[in-house]
Amino acid sequence: MDLLRTIKERRSIRAFHPEKEIPTAELDQLLEAAIWAPSAGNVQPWKFYVISDQRLKEALVRAAYGQSFIAEAPVVLAVCVEINEASMSYGTRGATLYCIQDTAAAIQNILLLAHALGLGSCWVGAFEESEAASALGCPRGQRPIAIIPIGYPAEQASAPPRKALKHVVIRR
Amino acid sequence: MDLLRTIKERRSIRAFHPEKEIPTAELDQLLEAAIWAPSAGNVQPWKFYVISDQRLKEALVRAAYGQSFIAEAPVVLAVCVEINEASMSYGTRGATLYCIQDTAAAIQNILLLAHALGLGSCWVGAFEESEAASALGCPRGQRPIAIIPIGYPAEQASAPPRKALKHVVIRR
Repeated sequence: MDLLRTIKERRSIRAFHPEKEIPTAELDQLLEAAIWAPSAGNVQPWKFYVISDQRLKEALVRAAYGQSFIAEAPVVLAVCVEINEASMSYGTRGATLYCIQDTAAAIQNILLLAHALGLGSCWVGAFEESEAASALGCPRGQRPIAIIPIGYPAEQASAPPRKALKHVVIRR
Repeated sequence: MDLLRTIKERRSIRAFHPEKEIPTAELDQLLEAAIWAPSAGNVQPWKFYVISDQRLKEALVRAAYGQSFIAEAPVVLAVCVEINEASMSYGTRGATLYCIQDTAAAIQNILLLAHALGLGSCWVGAFEESEAASALGCPRGQRPIAIIPIGYPAEQASAPPRKALKHVVIRR
């Protein structure tokens, strides 16, 4: 089962070969993977910023409390939800739950495919949203919910332990 | 690229062969896939209810506004967030963003692997959370955020259209 192995072997990578570019075809595959995530009512309430500009990467580092490895990746993705699209279809539940889930599924697709392609990435959630939105130039209603540096891994990360299935599974 | 094909070919399936059981080994693989999702700070703020009891499935149908296909699946998963675990580590951001993202990544792993195993599933988000929590017997602080019927597909679903990449990708 190749997919299960990919799922289990994916790690958060925080060190990259900054000079080793990601081929355009592979970057396009990552974006393709993202948009084929499911979304509630097929609303697809997402935007994906593909960032190669170094000054913008540095601004995201500052928004992310100085997590400097972000700027070392050749490409940084910033994933945003379109709050208005989500709430127009599903009100508060759309804006506070569905659009977060939809984009998280898209992000997981990206992380898995990146790993399968030999790339490393990290799902960064700790940042000041307003500062990131301002750096990205997000229009009103667009909320950045993840920053994802992507590049060729310059570290081998070990697997964080997982809670045993018996502690998180309830059979009824 | 097998993984990209799996990602693109996964569909929401709402019709199942009710009598065709899911082998235990495959169900275990789905749960294994779930717990290898990333989570903020490795908190793993999740619980997975594995439901085969028919009366409980019917109660979930009622909580989900009568979506009767849920009860036709041989197994239904209900995914919950542990709000207290999430907020203990990360406050409001943990309780309203990270734990939703963490479980959504876990769900996406389940959906992808289910498809790869020849199973069908559907991410159901439209339900009364309090009614579902009561049916499941969730303790305080446990919030159901998705219901996922899983079984062998009894329909072929077509791919909902996707927004073109140029409409959702911004390059900087």
